[in-house]
Amino acid sequence: MDFQILDGKLISKQIKDEIAEEVSQMIKRGQKQPHLSAILVGNDGASETYVAHKVKACEQVGFKSSLIRLEDTVSEEALIKEIEKLNKNNDVNGFIVQLPLPNYISEDKIIESIDPKKDVDGFHPVNVGRMTIGLPAFVSATPQGILDLMNRYKIETSGKHCVIIGRSNIVGKPLSILLSQKSDIGNATVTLCHSRTQNLKEITKQADILIAAIGVKEFVTKDMVKPGAVIIDVGIHRVKSDQTKSGWKLKGDVKFDEVAPLCSYITPVPGGVGPMTIVSLIKNTLAAAKKEVY
Amino acid sequence: MDFQILDGKLISKQIKDEIAEEVSQMIKRGQKQPHLSAILVGNDGASETYVAHKVKACEQVGFKSSLIRLEDTVSEEALIKEIEKLNKNNDVNGFIVQLPLPNYISEDKIIESIDPKKDVDGFHPVNVGRMTIGLPAFVSATPQGILDLMNRYKIETSGKHCVIIGRSNIVGKPLSILLSQKSDIGNATVTLCHSRTQNLKEITKQADILIAAIGVKEFVTKDMVKPGAVIIDVGIHRVKSDQTKSGWKLKGDVKFDEVAPLCSYITPVPGGVGPMTIVSLIKNTLAAAKKEVY
Repeated sequence: MDFQILDGKLISKQIKDEIAEEVSQMIKRGQKQPHLSAILVGNDGASETYVAHKVKACEQVGFKSSLIRLEDTVSEEALIKEIEKLNKNNDVNGFIVQLPLPNYISEDKIIESIDPKKDVDGFHPVNVGRMTIGLPAFVSATPQGILDLMNRYKIETSGKHCVIIGRSNIVGKPLSILLSQKSDIGNATVTLCHSRTQNLKEITKQADILIAAIGVKEFVTKDMVKPGAVIIDVGIHRVKSDQTKSGWKLKGDVKFDEVAPLCSYITPVPGGVGPMTIVSLIKNTLAAAKKEVY
Repeated sequence: MDFQILDGKLISKQIKDEIAEEVSQMIKRGQKQPHLSAILVGNDGASETYVAHKVKACEQVGFKSSLIRLEDTVSEEALIKEIEKLNKNNDVNGFIVQLPLPNYISEDKIIESIDPKKDVDGFHPVNVGRMTIGLPAFVSATPQGILDLMNRYKIETSGKHCVIIGRSNIVGKPLSILLSQKSDIGNATVTLCHSRTQNLKEITKQADILIAAIGVKEFVTKDMVKPGAVIIDVGIHRVKSDQTKSGWKLKGDVKFDEVAPLCSYITPVPGGVGPMTIVSLIKNTLAAAKKEVY
């Protein structure tokens, strides 16, 4: 069967171009340049990379960005003080605290200290609650990116059976809520599966849309997929490879080579969900600047 | 097949007795009597009945209760002023605003003006968000009552396929979140169905636990049920009857007479989910008085 790639790299570029155009119009009208700020605690390699990507995306769309670096010995109190400064800073439209944080700091407490109106990661309980009820909210970046990607490819969700593997607070759970909601990219019948699910294969084989967000490399194999299904792969795993210059290759939660020929649409790894995630953060920051949510 | 009734009347009585005992111990220790307050706008018949039941349940467990009646011409502003008084009143542990409200009042705005720490209905976005993330929260009464009822009958949810029909903000959606969570009365594989679901019967026939919260009288028929399933009926419909003195009879979302013989457990209507709902409000108020959530 011929399958089509859901090209997150292409679509994220399109969306960034649209946002860049809008920002340039805003500035022409004399409006303020949207400003995203990030707090980075310590020097974790992956966190450094993620933050660098976010800063770069800001530059691409014409946002102002600022990075606040704190030592990995910073106290919870001192971190909260920095957050309160950003809450009050009228020049900052939205900000994120890059996770994970050192063990001795309560991530819940940190997230709850962010002003929901500037919580462009959508992690604050107020935003999660508003999203759940169906009120305007900042939606966390990965679920929003997946919805936008499907939407741009005009993938029908209404009435479809969507099976999600993985119940994380930042991907599986919010996706299950959003996809079942009465909305243009919703109205799906959603089954949320996880580590305790029995007969997983029986369920995934029913999926018109299968979303793998379980965090296990190449977990989804061809025997788990209904022919013609849409496959969204949220996983990202670095594996050794002698075929690349770097000596590494990225793999997803889906065994791409054997699953792809069965599908109608599938996201690649890399270049699928990943780039959509960052563009969603940018979209949220623009929405904050335009006061579209609050 | 022999089926067992999930007796909400009995279990709610047990829970109320336990709470009454705890309240009497609290008072013996010189602690304050828990206090639930309710705001009732207008004179809607159903709302009057619900509020009367809540006041009566307070009496049964030894709570103080108070009822604030407002004309159905009250302004949104005046209603919010009453809410702010209750937010500040240290004698009140929790309160509810009985819904529905007159059309010209925004229910969202009213709910958001309630202090989340006193929001024993669990409708405030902060409580919905905390529940969704898995943080301590006031959970709305019907979902909590259903979980407690299943729990008292030691119905296993872990790994079971639970199908919910109906995606309302106060029943279907929160239940889908709670039942799929990593918790003692969770860990189920959950499918959320609704008006847009295709092949509904195919899906409901897979359910180990089937929850009907669709609001259509006797919607669930025997051909939709897997033998041995657990059936939870959230519906409540008043129909004419020549077999009762009142001339009325209550029916659920499930065609009880034909479905019951297929099941392992089933909730009756009345006397199933209904009484559990009120007792959950009482439980939340006790938790507020004991500062267990916040």
